[in-house]
Parts: sequence; C-alpha cells; structure tokens
Amino acid sequence: MNLKIAVLSGDGIGPEVTLQAKKALHAIGVVYNHEFVFEDAYIGAIAIEKTGKPLPEQTLNLCRNTDSILFGAIGDSKYDNDPSAKIRPEQGLLKLRKELGLFANIRPIKAYPKLMNSSPIKKEVLQGTDFVVYRELNGGMYFGEKHTNEEGTYASDLCEYNEEEIVKISHLAFKAAQNRRKKVTLVDKANVLETSRLWRRVVTEVAKEYPDVTLEFLYIDNASMQIIVNPRQFDILLTDNLFGDILSDEASVISGSIGLMSSASIGEKYSLFEPIHGCYTEARGKNIANPIASILSVALLLEHFGLVTESKKVIAAVEKAIVSNVVTVDLKVDSQFGTNEVGDFISNYI
Amino acid sequence: MNLKIAVLSGDGIGPEVTLQAKKALHAIGVVYNHEFVFEDAYIGAIAIEKTGKPLPEQTLNLCRNTDSILFGAIGDSKYDNDPSAKIRPEQGLLKLRKELGLFANIRPIKAYPKLMNSSPIKKEVLQGTDFVVYRELNGGMYFGEKHTNEEGTYASDLCEYNEEEIVKISHLAFKAAQNRRKKVTLVDKANVLETSRLWRRVVTEVAKEYPDVTLEFLYIDNASMQIIVNPRQFDILLTDNLFGDILSDEASVISGSIGLMSSASIGEKYSLFEPIHGCYTEARGKNIANPIASILSVALLLEHFGLVTESKKVIAAVEKAIVSNVVTVDLKVDSQFGTNEVGDFISNYI
Ligand SMILES: CC(C)[C@H](C(=O)O)[C@@H](O)C(=O)O
Ligand SMILES: CC(C)[C@H](C(=O)O)[C@@H](O)C(=O)O
Repeated sequence: MNLKIAVLSGDGIGPEVTLQAKKALHAIGVVYNHEFVFEDAYIGAIAIEKTGKPLPEQTLNLCRNTDSILFGAIGDSKYDNDPSAKIRPEQGLLKLRKELGLFANIRPIKAYPKLMNSSPIKKEVLQGTDFVVYRELNGGMYFGEKHTNEEGTYASDLCEYNEEEIVKISHLAFKAAQNRRKKVTLVDKANVLETSRLWRRVVTEVAKEYPDVTLEFLYIDNASMQIIVNPRQFDILLTDNLFGDILSDEASVISGSIGLMSSASIGEKYSLFEPIHGCYTEARGKNIANPIASILSVALLLEHFGLVTESKKVIAAVEKAIVSNVVTVDLKVDSQFGTNEVGDFISNYI
Repeated sequence: MNLKIAVLSGDGIGPEVTLQAKKALHAIGVVYNHEFVFEDAYIGAIAIEKTGKPLPEQTLNLCRNTDSILFGAIGDSKYDNDPSAKIRPEQGLLKLRKELGLFANIRPIKAYPKLMNSSPIKKEVLQGTDFVVYRELNGGMYFGEKHTNEEGTYASDLCEYNEEEIVKISHLAFKAAQNRRKKVTLVDKANVLETSRLWRRVVTEVAKEYPDVTLEFLYIDNASMQIIVNPRQFDILLTDNLFGDILSDEASVISGSIGLMSSASIGEKYSLFEPIHGCYTEARGKNIANPIASILSVALLLEHFGLVTESKKVIAAVEKAIVSNVVTVDLKVDSQFGTNEVGDFISNYI
C-alpha cells in the first residue's frame, strides 16, 4: 500500500512523540512492503508563531491532499490566561476537525492486564473492562456562538445540535456495537438540557434500525461516577462533544496512564489519529514523554486502512516494550528509558 | 435554639431517607434541648402529581418563612424520555435554587479510613484526601435560554455567566481555603469556552484579596482524571454549575459510596441541605436505601447554625453505625440492616 500522511506534530511534547510514531510506521513499511510518505506541517502555537494563524492555509490544503493525518498535541498556557487573546492554538485543531468534517472521535478504553498495577483503580474493578467512547466532534458548545460584552463582564457559549449531526455519529456507534457486545449507552443531561433531550429522541430513533443492540441512558454526572465504580458495564459509550472530552480523559485512568491512550477522528472523507494527552509543555525536550499513545495511534491508522496484521504488530511491539519494562517514568518511576529509547525499542522490535 | 425547618422530601427514596434525617435531628433536639419544628411540603414529580407544578407556590412560601430546608431527592425517568414534556420534576429544584438565591453548592469530599475498602480506588491513592467542591448553583447552562425549533430537529442551551455571579462564589471559596490548606483550584475549559475565560479573569482578580491563598487552574478534562489519579492535591475546587455537577458526583467514589455524600446549598438569606444522590426510583419502598447521606446533611445544617458540638455528635453517630457494621447493602453486600434500622441505630446512639 501507498499512503501519503500529513504529520502535524504541534506544540510541547507533540514533536518528540510524533517522531516515534513516524519511526514505528516507517518500520512497518519496511517489513510489510508499504510506502508511507510523510509531509510535515505546522499547527497550534508553533503555527501562530511562524505564520500568525493556528491553522495555516498550507496545512489545511496539505491535509486535504493526503490520505490521512498523524497529529501530535497543541496548546500553550499563555493564551488561556489572557482573555483578550483573539487567536489561540486550540482554534487550529477545532478548525481542522470542522473543515475536514471529522465528526466522530473514537477512543478505545481497555484495562491491560500488564498495567493494572499502575492504575489508581483496584484490579478487581478493572478486570475485563473494554469499551469505546464515541464522542461527537463537530458540534455542541465547542462550535456554538461565543460572546463577551464590551466591558468584559458577561460571557456566553451556545451549545447547539441538530438531528443530522446526531444521526451520523449514532450510526457509527451502533454499527460498532453490533461487532462487539451489542450495547450503546447514551450519556447526557436530559433532566436539564434541551440538546440532551434532542439526543435522546434522535438516538432512540436510530436505535430502531439496530434491534440487536440495547440502548441505555445515563446522566453525565452519574456516568462520571459509573466509569470508576463499574467500568465493565460499558460497551459503546456515545456522547456529545463536551461530555465526550471529559469522560474519555477520565476513562484514561482505566488503562493506567493517559500516556497510553490514542484516538481516531473520523469523517466521511478524512481521518486523523492522535494521542489523547495534551502538549505537556513542562516535559518538552526532556526526553521523558511517553511515546506509546502516539505510537498506538499508528495502530489505529493502520487498522483504519484495513492493514490489520500490521496494526496488530504495532500493538504487539508496544506490549513487548511494556512487559520488558522499556517504558518511560510515568509507568515506572525509576525507569532509565526516555521517549527516544522506548521509540527505538518499539521500531526495532517491529 | 429554635429552628423551623421545611422538609421537602420529594420523590423516589427521598421520603424514606429524609425520615431518618428528621429522626436524627429530633434526637439532637431532645439531647441538647433545642426545638426543631418540621413542616413538610411537596416538590418534584410528587408535586406535579398533586398540584400540577414541580414547585407549588405553597412550598416556595414555606421555604421563605422557615429557617432552613431539608431536601430529599427528585426525579422520574418518564419525563426524561419524553422530549415534549413541558413540566419536569427537576424544574422544581432548579427554581427553588434560583428563587432563594442558593448560589453556592458545597460538597465536602473525604476519604474515611473506615470505608476505604469499599472505594474502587486504591487505599494508597485515597489516603489523606480531604477537599471541598464549591459549585456555582444559580447560573451557567442550567439557567440560560433553551430552544427547540418547531420541527424538533434543532435544540440549543445557552451557557452564560456574569462577573457578579462569579465574584460571589469565589469569595466563599477563598474564605474557606483560608481556614484550610490555602489552595483554590479553578476548574474550567478556558482553551475553548468564553465563559471559562471570564471565570479565569474574575477569579484571578478576587484572588488578589487573598494573598495567602494559592490559585491554580485546571481544565475540566484533566480535572476529571486528576480527581482519581491524585485526589490529595486538592483543597478547594471551585467551578461552574455543570462542571460542578459532574465533578462532585465523580468525587463521591472517594468516600466509598454516593450514599454517604451530602451537600449544603447556601445563599445570602437561605440555606438548603441535601444528600447528593438522586431519587433512585428502583429502590423506593424497599427499605434498602442508605440514609447516611441524608443524615449527614443534618450535620451540615447544624454546623451552619453554629451548633458545632451537635454536628459532631451526628457525625460520631454515623461513624459508630459504620464501625458497628450497621449499614445498608451498598456498603456491605450481605447486610441485614435496612434504611429504617440504620436510621434507628443512629438516632438511638445520639
Ligand atoms: C485541545 C482541546 C481543544 C481538545 C478538546 O477539548 O477537544 C483536547 O482536550 C481533546 O480532547 O482533543
Ligand atoms: C436533579 C438535577 C437537576 C441536579 C443537578 O444537576 O443539579 C442533581 O444532579 C444535583 O447535582 O443536585
């Protein structure tokens, strides 16, 4: 296979972890005789610095003309604490998701037997946990109208959804459930929010087309508790943009480290793969960031293109690194291995 | 002391657990020579059933003419799954919070040594955890304009905040921090939301009046993870209405059971005390609901009125029940004790 891949490594630890992902993908290419061509482009704070825009035209065009996207991380806290900043790194990612129609963010959550000890949750609670979060990625509070009055004493964010947006992601979720344990849990706040009640109505409609799949409802406050108390109960967790952001980060504690979690953002034409962790600026350049999430996003990419054996190879290499204790300090406090060493081990193993 | 208390026990298990709270408060009155007069009133689904309104005028008037309010729980799932329902139980509670200006919801989170084993989180992570969530309760998405188009294919909820609302709760939070470990963590989504950026600006201003208190910021997605990974880091957690709803339910896993968590809702003139759990309709009338959260809300009420010894007595009685294994099935799977027996044990001990 021949794939052209845009590499948007972004800010903070983004570039260092993405480099390891490229190495792993390159190794797969060599072993299985595929050609992966990488093209780098700016996004986020670094893009603002270089071009004045968080998502330069050039980057967007590149993404439109490649087969897929590997994404690193973005952000810089100096923008958050400056309410007057009109341009922010995150706008780059949000615009990219919107422009490319990446409407579904898919995050697999699994308790890895080898890593259960590094989770704050008890083993007997974790055992057997295996669910996938389907987060809507193009709507909700992220993209509704924002407003601040002139004096800066009032602000608002509009959360909005239409039927079509909910239908699209729901079908993906129900199809995924059909290939799994046949259960979809919709998380919302239907006792308070109008948008949540729209979600309930639309998802209930869609569910009728999947009679083999059970649909359950859970309030977001209860869900944030259930994910910790009884994570095994979930199969597919379907939710909106903001609730999905919160729940999938929370659920990362199940795997032992957020440094292990990757996600796929899928649209009708495009796809993007990224670790779910942030840019972790404090760790930048120190060779301590865990590259596994980024490398596992390569596994998701390969799977997306039907390269199942190759995808499994990447996962096996990561597992080998873990059982061999070739991991970064977040997984083993006294580890001697850095970002680079873990990345080398994994690509060599491949 | 002489206190007139409105008792709004509501729906589901609300009445049974509130009954135990009344028994405990009555016992305190007998022992310490106070007079507590209870007046019952309807709210929620039961109020809709009886009067057509989730918060009847009579109930609101009663609350305005009493010293404090004991609240049970409300809700009925039949309203959630009916998007056309115009009247809902929750509106009763939301209107009450708004009409009485109960702008701060305060939820103490503690790891009880005696109960650590019943938490899904590991003991070594929990040990020493002791923080308080300050949730804004009169604004945000809960109260912004809601809209659905005629065809029912589009819905929106507006999240809005003004400076004044943020200032009020912030002062409470910083004052509380001064009497504790002197740290406030503001949880928001300032990298995406305009309202969050207003919160950051205003809270940063307020913080200047409390130079002895450290102010930190955390994104909601990260916070939902940190609460599980490293709960000891928090002292006062300050946040908006929706994020506070999510985080405080999530944080309940720290105490071992949501059946143990109570909260105070405070305004300039009025105060309301309630368990944080919901109405748990499936358990209604079965004598299995845990009354401890409701009884501990009595401890918060007593403390609020300066009756510190009395408050401590209630807590001691609860602890006695726990160490004596006189608890409901949520805390001990094979327990022989029901709601009533636990309530009796606690009031007898007092
Ligand atoms: C960086 C930020 C805008 C983003 C989000 O909130 O969507 C991130 O937290 C994520 O989950 O991908
Ligand atoms: C019942 C519901 C409206 C309420 C809320 O969301 O505020 C409840 O979950 C709570 O936290 O008190």
